[in-house]
Amino acid sequence: MDTPLQKFILEIQEILDEEFSKLYSVMDAPSLLKKSMLYSLEAGGKRIRPMLLIATYKAYKSDIQKVLSSATALEMIHTYSLIHDDLPAMDNDDYRRGKLTNHKAFDEATAILAGDALLTHSFYLIANDTLLSDSEKVHMIRLLSLYSGPNGMVAGQVLDMEAENDPISIEQLEQIHVLKTGELIKFAVKAGAILGNATKEQIQHLETFSYYLGLLFQIQDDILDVIGNTEKLGKAVGSDEDQNKSTYPKLLGLENAKKQRDAYAGKAKASLQKAGADTIILMELVDYFSQRDH
Amino acid sequence: MDTPLQKFILEIQEILDEEFSKLYSVMDAPSLLKKSMLYSLEAGGKRIRPMLLIATYKAYKSDIQKVLSSATALEMIHTYSLIHDDLPAMDNDDYRRGKLTNHKAFDEATAILAGDALLTHSFYLIANDTLLSDSEKVHMIRLLSLYSGPNGMVAGQVLDMEAENDPISIEQLEQIHVLKTGELIKFAVKAGAILGNATKEQIQHLETFSYYLGLLFQIQDDILDVIGNTEKLGKAVGSDEDQNKSTYPKLLGLENAKKQRDAYAGKAKASLQKAGADTIILMELVDYFSQRDH
Repeated sequence: MDTPLQKFILEIQEILDEEFSKLYSVMDAPSLLKKSMLYSLEAGGKRIRPMLLIATYKAYKSDIQKVLSSATALEMIHTYSLIHDDLPAMDNDDYRRGKLTNHKAFDEATAILAGDALLTHSFYLIANDTLLSDSEKVHMIRLLSLYSGPNGMVAGQVLDMEAENDPISIEQLEQIHVLKTGELIKFAVKAGAILGNATKEQIQHLETFSYYLGLLFQIQDDILDVIGNTEKLGKAVGSDEDQNKSTYPKLLGLENAKKQRDAYAGKAKASLQKAGADTIILMELVDYFSQRDH
Repeated sequence: MDTPLQKFILEIQEILDEEFSKLYSVMDAPSLLKKSMLYSLEAGGKRIRPMLLIATYKAYKSDIQKVLSSATALEMIHTYSLIHDDLPAMDNDDYRRGKLTNHKAFDEATAILAGDALLTHSFYLIANDTLLSDSEKVHMIRLLSLYSGPNGMVAGQVLDMEAENDPISIEQLEQIHVLKTGELIKFAVKAGAILGNATKEQIQHLETFSYYLGLLFQIQDDILDVIGNTEKLGKAVGSDEDQNKSTYPKLLGLENAKKQRDAYAGKAKASLQKAGADTIILMELVDYFSQRDH
């Protein structure tokens, strides 16, 4: 563990673990609910979204205390979406990251409520932060609720569900991913830039960066589903294909999907440079996203 | 339809219908998702919570435009909680207010996502309001997320679920109702008072008012479940009893439950007077809550 990115990843994991354990001791919620919320928060995600948020902020400023509530809230929203996504009525998954999904470890009702609680509490975390100004809080909450709501991530879930058994075009596939995955990645990058006082022009370039980053992340996800190994992914390889789901490798072929991913990585890096945010960490993050094996 | 309260009820219904139809035209969400969200928003609820919020505000100020986003957000959160509560994994209800529940009219996945979307969008509505200051927005969002989250309404749902088949005491029953129903009623009253610039002391009396109001509302709900008629309630009478659920009439007897309800109505009215908010509308609302037949 030697590269700057690897050090950064460990640092962020520790910070988030501490933020989550604070939640546990502060919340007055019923014990079953807290256990269920914490179970999924601590299920060993890669923390990609808070990492991106903090890395983008660090391209401009250094006192990361200021972005911790937004980063934690973002990971909570991502986690709630996974819990609800895994439910029998949705993807009906028994395992995620090699562990039982929330409704399998607890039960369906508890999983639904844990998701609702994580979503609701994420806005409380930001509204109750003592380091942000009211204007910054409102800005964060407005973007987070917009990008994760019925015009953002939830829209992506609905479109994804509707497309499950229908053949769709590559444009439709991209639209689904832009909404379902891309919107939270956009929030991560924009939130870091806004709280870091980046200029409007820099924020625009970063939005472009986040767009390509979100897409290459999803392409790599689809590629891993074809070539990855079960142990590392913690889910059955080929499960997307089993479900008749449209994926990049299926629509473009495996080799062209890889080419597309690398082309997007190039565009992402170019946007970072234009935003003056071409730090070692962010540049390495692009490679980490496109070359990850799990 | 002649009393001031009856006029007020009609007025609020119209205002909310307009706010909801605005949502429909503004949101860029997938059509299925919008239909499902609107289906439950327009399913003919009594609009008790927004009514209370606006009536409390009007005890101090008259320009109700200022509270519309908070009132609409509150009704959206109440609606999401009903959608998730009705799901097969929770109460498994096929009908509500005489109409098919959301997952019966659509499907389970859509109902889960419509609930998530309503919850998320409620915070966006407040954050994106143009009439509130940033400080007011943060105050509203902080209270709403606190009262509806893992320390508030969702906690009540979890405790209610855990108590389903166990005999519980009257104190435990009250705790469940204070959380499950009372917290949103508290938000309604406090939000109206805060945005109406009530004094700290007035807000304290109003919080006491909301406490008794929430409890008497729930007692009446339990009483109606024993004596009401199916047509007016839109659900099978006695359904709580069928499920072995603890209720006020079961724990206190029907006559004592009625006495308790009336005692709480008296306390609620006394608190209104102390808060200088003993307007005709709020006083009549207490009677409306305790004497409603559906």
